[in-house]
Amino acid sequence: MNAQRRVRLSPDQRREQLLELGVELLATRTLDELSVELLAEEAGISRGLLFHYFKNKQEFHREVVRRAAEDLLRVTDPDPNLPAEQQLASSMAAYVDYVSEKYQSYVSLVRGAASGDDQLREIADATRSALTDRITSNLANLGLHHTPAALLAARGWTAYAEELVVSWAAAPPIPRDELIRMLTESLAAVIATAR
Amino acid sequence: MNAQRRVRLSPDQRREQLLELGVELLATRTLDELSVELLAEEAGISRGLLFHYFKNKQEFHREVVRRAAEDLLRVTDPDPNLPAEQQLASSMAAYVDYVSEKYQSYVSLVRGAASGDDQLREIADATRSALTDRITSNLANLGLHHTPAALLAARGWTAYAEELVVSWAAAPPIPRDELIRMLTESLAAVIATAR
Repeated sequence: MNAQRRVRLSPDQRREQLLELGVELLATRTLDELSVELLAEEAGISRGLLFHYFKNKQEFHREVVRRAAEDLLRVTDPDPNLPAEQQLASSMAAYVDYVSEKYQSYVSLVRGAASGDDQLREIADATRSALTDRITSNLANLGLHHTPAALLAARGWTAYAEELVVSWAAAPPIPRDELIRMLTESLAAVIATAR
Repeated sequence: MNAQRRVRLSPDQRREQLLELGVELLATRTLDELSVELLAEEAGISRGLLFHYFKNKQEFHREVVRRAAEDLLRVTDPDPNLPAEQQLASSMAAYVDYVSEKYQSYVSLVRGAASGDDQLREIADATRSALTDRITSNLANLGLHHTPAALLAARGWTAYAEELVVSWAAAPPIPRDELIRMLTESLAAVIATAR
């Protein structure tokens, strides 16, 4: 980032850029390791200027995690032009690739669900709910029924997928395509138990 | 608890009793709400005496969560005299009942997996691993194969069961027996996707 380019950016664009850099840095670091100093250094700006964009370290962390969540929801958004079953497989492929590339960002997001920080927990819960809603609103297209038991199974499946992808990305015991197939087939498999 | 009874207990017995009381109190409270003052009051002892048994509040919280984890593993320990499939169903029934009765204790345990406290995380991880190991060591008895994909599915299934039981206990949308059947059948269902 050179000074000339910096001048051209609006404050909003600048903040966006800092968040993108934050997600990038968080891919290989825990939240604890993602310091304000590191971001300032990597962005080539002063620590003081950084606090012009983020009130404090906590807000910076939350906004980076929120951005990671938005990225995840965007890349896994199903393509409505595909048949329902292929939509799921293609979402799962994007999910696996996102977690592989941004491993620590994703772990920070998932861990947020259980953190002491209410706002981090809210981001994590909202993301999980958005993913579950997407699945359940698509159940009919997958030939599955909308019953209380099926909705419960769909919610459980989101946790299943989360655990599978995080475990896999940490040390892949099977090929990527095999994982994507397992993720895709397991949804119908667990919902079939909710008869 | 009267003074006479207190005198008869050894320090170890006394500590055990305080932990049991802690798990009991945690059933309807978050860890944040489980104060040292409350335990002292409920146990009828002074705050000072309590710190004779637990170094500080953090140690007290950890030991209560550890005790909750031990209780969970004990009550869900399968009866080896039952056929393999009934062992799973009976473990699941004990699991559902434990979470129903000790809801907040269990949530505190599960949340520990993602908490900032390394030791709470260790307790949660060890408990989840113990539950997963129990399942995977029993795969052959359930007529299922031990492959890397099956082990991954079993790990994911532990997260599935966790989410299902916690969601269910918060607001049961289906009868208990239906939940137990879903839990039991879903294990074979997800492992079948790992062919």
